[in-house]
Amino acid sequence: MTTLEDLVNPGIRSLTPYEPGKPIEELAREQGFAPEEICKLASNENPLGPSPLALQAIREALPHIHLYPDGAGHLLREAIASHHGLAAENVVLGNGSNEIIELLFHVFVLPGIHEVLCSRHAFAVYRLMAQLFDAPCLETPDPEFRHDLSVLRKSIGAQTRLIFLTSPNNPTGCRIPNRELEEFVRAIPPHTVVALDEAYVDFLDDPPPSISWVREGRNIVLLRTFSKMEGLAGLRIGYALAPAPLASWLQRARQPFNTNSLAQAAAIAALKDHAHREQTRRIIREGRIRLEDAFTAEGLTYVPSAANFVMVRVGDGDRLFQSLLRRGWIVRPLRSYGLPEWVRVSIGTPEQMTRFLEVFPAALRESATTPASATG
Amino acid sequence: MTTLEDLVNPGIRSLTPYEPGKPIEELAREQGFAPEEICKLASNENPLGPSPLALQAIREALPHIHLYPDGAGHLLREAIASHHGLAAENVVLGNGSNEIIELLFHVFVLPGIHEVLCSRHAFAVYRLMAQLFDAPCLETPDPEFRHDLSVLRKSIGAQTRLIFLTSPNNPTGCRIPNRELEEFVRAIPPHTVVALDEAYVDFLDDPPPSISWVREGRNIVLLRTFSKMEGLAGLRIGYALAPAPLASWLQRARQPFNTNSLAQAAAIAALKDHAHREQTRRIIREGRIRLEDAFTAEGLTYVPSAANFVMVRVGDGDRLFQSLLRRGWIVRPLRSYGLPEWVRVSIGTPEQMTRFLEVFPAALRESATTPASATG
Repeated sequence: MTTLEDLVNPGIRSLTPYEPGKPIEELAREQGFAPEEICKLASNENPLGPSPLALQAIREALPHIHLYPDGAGHLLREAIASHHGLAAENVVLGNGSNEIIELLFHVFVLPGIHEVLCSRHAFAVYRLMAQLFDAPCLETPDPEFRHDLSVLRKSIGAQTRLIFLTSPNNPTGCRIPNRELEEFVRAIPPHTVVALDEAYVDFLDDPPPSISWVREGRNIVLLRTFSKMEGLAGLRIGYALAPAPLASWLQRARQPFNTNSLAQAAAIAALKDHAHREQTRRIIREGRIRLEDAFTAEGLTYVPSAANFVMVRVGDGDRLFQSLLRRGWIVRPLRSYGLPEWVRVSIGTPEQMTRFLEVFPAALRESATTPASATG
Repeated sequence: MTTLEDLVNPGIRSLTPYEPGKPIEELAREQGFAPEEICKLASNENPLGPSPLALQAIREALPHIHLYPDGAGHLLREAIASHHGLAAENVVLGNGSNEIIELLFHVFVLPGIHEVLCSRHAFAVYRLMAQLFDAPCLETPDPEFRHDLSVLRKSIGAQTRLIFLTSPNNPTGCRIPNRELEEFVRAIPPHTVVALDEAYVDFLDDPPPSISWVREGRNIVLLRTFSKMEGLAGLRIGYALAPAPLASWLQRARQPFNTNSLAQAAAIAALKDHAHREQTRRIIREGRIRLEDAFTAEGLTYVPSAANFVMVRVGDGDRLFQSLLRRGWIVRPLRSYGLPEWVRVSIGTPEQMTRFLEVFPAALRESATTPASATG
């Protein structure tokens, strides 16, 4: 007798679902807090909130949400292209940049045939998509949490179709030095495509000249998002920048209406909001210094971060997560990344950082003495 | 030398991208109209606009769009479950119900091995997804545009994993009689899953007892959407209803944050908006009668519709499309469905129907005498 499970593809059966940051509403339900008593530093969101220009654009677009979005995303693709000095043909919109990762698999990876490559402790969704498409995901070692590009290069095999590079990387916060990255990109073998995930690139003072690699027509896809700097994570809008022929293949793999109309309108407006971006950059820079200084004062090891979060070694990440939870703070424990001793803390507003750093030492001491809970 | 095209999967290479209804902005650009001079009856949207309760819910959710959505969609799944008398475990949210179609392929269809089955002139996205996953999509004949379930049943092969049934069907407007559907569902072979697409089910006066088939644990997935009755097409929110084990496999195949937070908030509110649904039902019923009467008066053949649109045989669909375009009206020509003599007209507000029916006879006469344009 055939059972339902017999019908399920092997990739799905082996898949370990992604563990998202704990939503505020869920914690409030569990711990008996009011949602406004809770502060989330767990998902690297923009603590300033969304761009005000984006909010205004949404209000103006609201009367038309009964209409399907522009499936081609004409206006947003033009705006993104102009922002980067590229053409609309270089831009592919995604339901978050996570969807771009899935499109790459649709276009380039056949189950049971092709492989993908990334660095250990790279963003979890690469592995998740590899499982979904039943493709091996080879992980190369990352000494001191840094991408080792020479090892990555040597690990490229005949069936390696996608190589994921992430700079700055989530959850480690490490960046790839521009010169190393450039050398790697200039030597991409013709049978592979590099996906350079730049979700956090806006937090770099000296970003790599990655746009020029798109212009040069290399086998490269840049992954960008409006979820971080622009503060639109709830709307799900990201994009790929790629040479036009590569972008046109990705376009074929997407759903006809993959991005919603409010996200399109908000993203166009957010691109124009230089003030919001500047203010975000400033508070992230300042908050990062405060956080790193506090960790040093506590004698903790942290990974110097190039992004809007800091990964710190606290002894037992799950315990610290729990003892912060009881105080109304959500951070990200990293057991699912194979880093049970670490947590990742997103940088908040100056006021949030002040309150967090008041609470943190006590939570840390408590986590060193109480038994870990089963969750995390 | 390996070229980029050599790297592209065969499914992507053979894929014919979906042709969406012409967006109002695009027509305005092309024809030199102001957007407000144009009326779109091309995508079966709700002519009343979105549910006012949904709009209010979005306004309240706006300050939080910098936060990631609840990936599990807890509150919306509870609301949908309660609306249908099911459990949250029966509900899978999608970025539009189109995404549910893709999840079904991820779970059940292996490229080069499995097949899917649907009726000729069924919704185009089934074929599109079959191409994406490089799976044959067998189409059974549909005499008088009706699903022939006995032929469908006989066409089920050893490798048939998914069977798509659509009632009411888009673009034909035909429904499957409840008794026929029930007989088919009670005899689903254990190696196949039936996807019953009920995007337009809310327009039926006597919908089938499909929820009970979910409760009975059959190999069935109901596809539902907030894009039609609730008027939220721009937000991209749909869902599957399925027995819990089947639903849990679909959950694994989705992205961690596949539905946006404004869509979740709006959908919860829209479910409570009985007044908006009742008013929509009434104007659709009335508009359908007016449209069908007008087609009869013009001596045109139409397919009696159970949905919020009518498919009518006009001689040359592309020409009529063009002559209506010049008057500021967008309808859907059906050449891409292999129906070049037909167009599909969505039902508008009473006032829109009055204006449309004033313009229609002249456009029809013009389309009988002018040469077709290349577009359509």
